[in-house]
Amino acid sequence: MANIKPSLAKGTRDFSPREMEKRNYIFNTLRTVFKKFGYNEIQTPSFENLSTLTGKYGEEGDKLIFKILNSGDYLAKAPEDFLNAKSSNKLIPHISEKALRYDLTVPFARYVVMHQHEIALPFKRFQIQPVWRADRPQRGRYREFYQCDVDVVGSSSLLNEAEFILVYQEALATLGLKDFTIKINNRKILSGIAEVIGKPELIVDMTVAIDKLDKIGLDGVNKELLARGFTETDLDVLKPIILLDGSNDEKLLSLKRVLSASNVGLQGIAEIEEVFRYLKNFGVERLLDDFIEVDITLARGLNYYTGCIFEVKTNEVSMGSIGGGGRYDDLTGMFGLKDLTGVGVSFGADRIYDVLEELNLFPGSTSASTQLLIVNFGEEACQHTLPLLYNLREAGIAAELYPNAAKLKKQMGYADAKQIPYVLLIGEEEMASSVYSLKDMASGEQQKVSAEQLLAFLTKNAISC
Amino acid sequence: MANIKPSLAKGTRDFSPREMEKRNYIFNTLRTVFKKFGYNEIQTPSFENLSTLTGKYGEEGDKLIFKILNSGDYLAKAPEDFLNAKSSNKLIPHISEKALRYDLTVPFARYVVMHQHEIALPFKRFQIQPVWRADRPQRGRYREFYQCDVDVVGSSSLLNEAEFILVYQEALATLGLKDFTIKINNRKILSGIAEVIGKPELIVDMTVAIDKLDKIGLDGVNKELLARGFTETDLDVLKPIILLDGSNDEKLLSLKRVLSASNVGLQGIAEIEEVFRYLKNFGVERLLDDFIEVDITLARGLNYYTGCIFEVKTNEVSMGSIGGGGRYDDLTGMFGLKDLTGVGVSFGADRIYDVLEELNLFPGSTSASTQLLIVNFGEEACQHTLPLLYNLREAGIAAELYPNAAKLKKQMGYADAKQIPYVLLIGEEEMASSVYSLKDMASGEQQKVSAEQLLAFLTKNAISC
Repeated sequence: MANIKPSLAKGTRDFSPREMEKRNYIFNTLRTVFKKFGYNEIQTPSFENLSTLTGKYGEEGDKLIFKILNSGDYLAKAPEDFLNAKSSNKLIPHISEKALRYDLTVPFARYVVMHQHEIALPFKRFQIQPVWRADRPQRGRYREFYQCDVDVVGSSSLLNEAEFILVYQEALATLGLKDFTIKINNRKILSGIAEVIGKPELIVDMTVAIDKLDKIGLDGVNKELLARGFTETDLDVLKPIILLDGSNDEKLLSLKRVLSASNVGLQGIAEIEEVFRYLKNFGVERLLDDFIEVDITLARGLNYYTGCIFEVKTNEVSMGSIGGGGRYDDLTGMFGLKDLTGVGVSFGADRIYDVLEELNLFPGSTSASTQLLIVNFGEEACQHTLPLLYNLREAGIAAELYPNAAKLKKQMGYADAKQIPYVLLIGEEEMASSVYSLKDMASGEQQKVSAEQLLAFLTKNAISC
Repeated sequence: MANIKPSLAKGTRDFSPREMEKRNYIFNTLRTVFKKFGYNEIQTPSFENLSTLTGKYGEEGDKLIFKILNSGDYLAKAPEDFLNAKSSNKLIPHISEKALRYDLTVPFARYVVMHQHEIALPFKRFQIQPVWRADRPQRGRYREFYQCDVDVVGSSSLLNEAEFILVYQEALATLGLKDFTIKINNRKILSGIAEVIGKPELIVDMTVAIDKLDKIGLDGVNKELLARGFTETDLDVLKPIILLDGSNDEKLLSLKRVLSASNVGLQGIAEIEEVFRYLKNFGVERLLDDFIEVDITLARGLNYYTGCIFEVKTNEVSMGSIGGGGRYDDLTGMFGLKDLTGVGVSFGADRIYDVLEELNLFPGSTSASTQLLIVNFGEEACQHTLPLLYNLREAGIAAELYPNAAKLKKQMGYADAKQIPYVLLIGEEEMASSVYSLKDMASGEQQKVSAEQLLAFLTKNAISC
């Protein structure tokens, strides 16, 4: 076989040790927060039966699902007319019965249905796994990326919605973010608005237009609304909604006036109010002022969500949303289990990574790094140092002995490249006296230490495993 | 779309919260040990270019690689004669350019070659990721399973081999295993034996036959050796090797006598002796007696390994090897980077899982579980309890409030199902007095506690996140 210069498959990435360390830092922080709120981790397989995934993401989505070719003589039973006509689409189900996970939601729904008799409702789960999409790769968009979903199914209580706001707040604050906004809306408010205008069938057009306020201004939005089938009279009703301003309480008050004739609209407002009441009773009223914003232009997943809708963005760097979610009423209906309500949110791990990078919020050194490199000055010194190395590791300190007596410069370069904070030098003199030279790689300072002093020093100053 | 009863793709598994907890316990234990020895984590993409994987695993291996169907109109450029002839194999490269990872070794080799200018040698990495094989599923064999590999490339020092023995010992002991055997052999010893007999070309036949000693006895092995081209004279030379007995030192001494005419054989022996010398100087001579066994019938990956070979098995339950590895001299040659030596071992996570399960060695409760459930006795009690819930989580204690006022039996059942160790009851009386009832779910005992006492109790007795 010829030696080909190897390359990555398009749209995929390797993760180096330092990148892994940062990614694990994010995932582990999220895991800890999710667990504190009573969420447990599950995992589903990387591939599902193609029939489990097909038809769940719309026609465009179906095209982006990676299909796995059947093994063996996969063409044996393929219909000849599809082959002759080169009907790529029609042939798929005949040569592929499996496909890579496209998101975590459909596999979760499948999981809930298949395990419905063993799980205790409400079922609170989180899932952090890669998904795959045959998107055209571009800056910041990959064909393999991690999703990070937290959901509870089987409980209609708005306590869950309130707690997701706490989850967002705690997770992002723990990661070091200081200024972020958790936007909240409710699908029922959007229904109410369309109802009050008398055009419930235009709810999607309305939301799409209003959503552009930031970009094209009120005049632009009005123009678009007219083009999409609304009248000047409708615009008069919509105006106070589009220009909704003030505190969250003021916004809800205005909405109540406008939607007074719509039961569903008022119910949406009441739901947000109940979420806020939970937060106040949690003792975190300050969150309401600092981080939470009622935003009725928020229309994320309009066809899917049925109650509260969330979206999170950071205000410290320019970046799209770093999370979002909402209440849905029919997660598992596609698999025949009706009326199971749920609410869930997700975290955009790749974007959060970029935000932390840009704000320099990753910890400088973590437990992933070796803490001490012992320089190898040759056979005798090497063997002499082994019991010390053993004891350091026994004490939970990540330590390495350079495996051969390479030039000092090379060994120090190794410590640099691995960002090892301390280096120990054991030469002939040091062996004889059992007093070693410890170098702090950041400050360049050197001190003399005995084995006991070294252990004490690193136990205090190094990060243990 | 019809509602189909969903199922898993053949050979794949869901992992429930409790299973995830156990799996994470194994992986995190291994991670901690690997880091202590200076190994850093990397990850490679789930799929690679098909050309990166093809031809690396033999003809049978190639068949077991899951190929991913190209997106879009994948048949457009497919050669018509292959379609007409239904030539499944020949068509593959025309309709599939990507494939799922089959192991972690080839992607690691690709990684090293692609990143050779940024990594500092010796490069010490570990990798814990799923791999996929189109094997026929059977008990204990899955189409998606995790591999867990630790390797160092760019260092020929036998210190690395010695440290892998320590890695195995520490990892397995930390997981609670008490009686296991780390077998060691050296490819050069096997070459030496074939050389001494004068039949180097029969080395594979010889090893395959000797390997069956346990099953078919000396007579059986001799019969097989004769059938495979050895003579009665050869059997006389082989006999002391096949029946090699005694302590490791005694075995090595016998081997030295038999292989005195083979330089390569003697070198293999010297390498094992050097590994043992490192271990003695580490101060762990007891390991040599208790856990390590020279076994010249060990022939794992004969065509791949060039120096020391390892295999690990537990003696507490009947199970195949739970790990293995060895020294190789040409990891990256397939991608054009020659002469990069390395040594690595792997852990069989699924088998280790089964061993720990059978020996009941998993921790009973871990940080993955909610520690306290607050029973929901209705709206007022629910709101009353929120600040307490908030403070518990602030203190790092995983706590939940049942989201609605369901029947007490249902709420207690939920605590049971989630294995939540403590339940707090806050009824009307408790609200008025601010003294709550705390129930220990294991013992059934109840005690009265104030909010402060509860916090103190759980800080002391519960597992924090």
